[in-house]
Amino acid sequence: MTASTAQGRDPASLRRHNLRALLRHLHLRGPTSRVGLGQVTGLTRSAIADLVGELTERGLVLESGSSQQQPGRTGRGRPPLIVSLRDERAYVLAIAVDVDTVRIGRVGLGGNVLEEMATQHEHVPGDPTPGLEQLARLVRELVTTTEAPPIAVGVAVPGLVRDEDGVVTRAPNLGWHELALGQRLRELAEITAPVVVGNEARLAALAEHRRGAGRDRTDLVYVSAGVGVGAGIVAHDQLLTGNTGYAGEIGHMITNPGGRTCHCGARGCWETEIGADALLRRIGVVEPADRQSELERLFERAEQGEAEALDAFRQLCTPVATGLANMINIFDPGLVLLGGLLRPLLRYAEGELRYNLERIRGLPELPVELGSARLGEQGHLLGAAEAAVSSFLASFE
Amino acid sequence: MTASTAQGRDPASLRRHNLRALLRHLHLRGPTSRVGLGQVTGLTRSAIADLVGELTERGLVLESGSSQQQPGRTGRGRPPLIVSLRDERAYVLAIAVDVDTVRIGRVGLGGNVLEEMATQHEHVPGDPTPGLEQLARLVRELVTTTEAPPIAVGVAVPGLVRDEDGVVTRAPNLGWHELALGQRLRELAEITAPVVVGNEARLAALAEHRRGAGRDRTDLVYVSAGVGVGAGIVAHDQLLTGNTGYAGEIGHMITNPGGRTCHCGARGCWETEIGADALLRRIGVVEPADRQSELERLFERAEQGEAEALDAFRQLCTPVATGLANMINIFDPGLVLLGGLLRPLLRYAEGELRYNLERIRGLPELPVELGSARLGEQGHLLGAAEAAVSSFLASFE
Ligand SMILES: [Zn+2]
Ligand SMILES: [Zn+2]
Repeated sequence: MTASTAQGRDPASLRRHNLRALLRHLHLRGPTSRVGLGQVTGLTRSAIADLVGELTERGLVLESGSSQQQPGRTGRGRPPLIVSLRDERAYVLAIAVDVDTVRIGRVGLGGNVLEEMATQHEHVPGDPTPGLEQLARLVRELVTTTEAPPIAVGVAVPGLVRDEDGVVTRAPNLGWHELALGQRLRELAEITAPVVVGNEARLAALAEHRRGAGRDRTDLVYVSAGVGVGAGIVAHDQLLTGNTGYAGEIGHMITNPGGRTCHCGARGCWETEIGADALLRRIGVVEPADRQSELERLFERAEQGEAEALDAFRQLCTPVATGLANMINIFDPGLVLLGGLLRPLLRYAEGELRYNLERIRGLPELPVELGSARLGEQGHLLGAAEAAVSSFLASFE
Repeated sequence: MTASTAQGRDPASLRRHNLRALLRHLHLRGPTSRVGLGQVTGLTRSAIADLVGELTERGLVLESGSSQQQPGRTGRGRPPLIVSLRDERAYVLAIAVDVDTVRIGRVGLGGNVLEEMATQHEHVPGDPTPGLEQLARLVRELVTTTEAPPIAVGVAVPGLVRDEDGVVTRAPNLGWHELALGQRLRELAEITAPVVVGNEARLAALAEHRRGAGRDRTDLVYVSAGVGVGAGIVAHDQLLTGNTGYAGEIGHMITNPGGRTCHCGARGCWETEIGADALLRRIGVVEPADRQSELERLFERAEQGEAEALDAFRQLCTPVATGLANMINIFDPGLVLLGGLLRPLLRYAEGELRYNLERIRGLPELPVELGSARLGEQGHLLGAAEAAVSSFLASFE
């Protein structure tokens, strides 16, 4: 039974429910007239006026005359009032942590990036404290000049995050293990707002669904390859989390039981078949000292049309298509968005990839579009912002 | 924005929403006191009395004194009134169609099987009409002696079913292709109730979630092997359908690209690795004339502890575990329920299966229970009943 039934229900909880509904609508759909808010919520004019009044008083929204009035239409009466979010007051902090880089930004309720910066991650392998202290410093710097404190903080990390308590169970590239990141950041940065932590690929999928190439889709699969392979799945308009928060570990889907041994111990995991090292092996680079610059060199060579570089991408198409075919058969997502190394793959070997996908997947009944993730490197950051907004709305009183 | 917001909303739609909520609760949770209904819905006493009054008048529920009163407790005042569904009046017809057999039953709102029968499917390969006429006859027979017509009809089929219009896109073992099964059955059997058609494995997963081994779970994966492999996934308490209704085609997940060619055209699909034919090949039976009796003989031999038969099951454990590991990594379901041939596999080779699953899956963080589907052969029928109830509730006015 949903928590949202009606007639004769506790008026305070109803009011809260309705305030959240208005904020969620403004966040996802942008400025809306009072009439429009009435239409989407089914609430009466006076109920809307009352709720908008409270949100205005609390500094979260403002109302102004419509600027979109038709010039030819000499309206009698007042122009319609448009309700918008005051995002300089109602903003979240979004953080995306990676091995080399930390991105941090202020993102307004409504999705505008108000301020953003990237810096080198002061990351000490095996000791999370220096990195955490840096994050806390960045948070304090960003907040110090603002009108109001953040309403919530979201952090995207490359690792497994347990839903129940937000603990980073394992982030192998950062050497983190059972790290209560959210709690420690709250303490170090002296934040009172909730801090929500999530897996970066899941959050990027959320961002693509709300702000990117998956807007207005109810289902999508987002797959991103780097050293590992991450994914996020949206089904029935909801990000799939699974029972403990680990849903989407498709990097360890076994697509080739006779293949190489993965760092997880299994053989033939998809990420050992298609990750950065598998790509570099195809141009003869094994265990590179500086993986990132080897990859960049490869992209440059491919961009210049060099045969060996292009071949490396083409050779990856069969194992990539195998895993994608599986995802399509399992989820029937309608849309598959590719991120990370799969974006240059789509750029340099799209024909080969599509050919292999059609050849391999046995069920032509499943219609599917293949496209690039639109938000690129900003996906993790924007996803962290969306998760923060969701957590703010869930606890909004 | 959910469709269930409140204050000042159209009273008729609110009332409908609340009536549905009461029926859904009684269906899933069984007889409940008025006070209990008030607690789960948050509605006031007078609102509950009013709504229960309408449901009573419409013949859907009845109220009676509690029979569960504590004997030691000499209650003052009246015993609490218990609201129950009148399932002899409010029932669905459930049908499970297979190549050889048709099962049909009357299932009350609330989940009681009131009447059930199985008969040989008068199935003519390539011509669906004789089978459909038989179904229509069975429907008419079952309905003729009842107090009231069914409130909805559900049909489980071994094939792909398109969500949008309920058309069976393809049921290879029945030779059906683009068959508007629901519509034709309504015409032939002269039913006015809605007819909802679904894939049998998805419906079995729904039944396990609502009535079987997955009660009170929010997430589960149900996998059943026969000639093919079917699955149903429940995530966030919802059956995963995908964009067009085909989600769950894990039989065609490629787990061994170097393996045999599947009937779908791909190589190394999971169902070619673990389906009935893969099992029979392990005792030297290739392309059996009567697959079902070969399988039954194998079960008997395994039951008697014959080494060759038990070995056949044990040898299947590695490819079975590979696919299950993938499902666990992808969905983090917490619970995996095994049906069809995977139930005897669990019976005869549980140790081997669990050993292989632990060996193969690389992420020990993902906790998972492995168990047998509880409803067995009745799963398809009960799932069809649940789908019918959902469709009744969705259109309840
Ligand atoms: Zn692995
Ligand atoms: Zn196949």
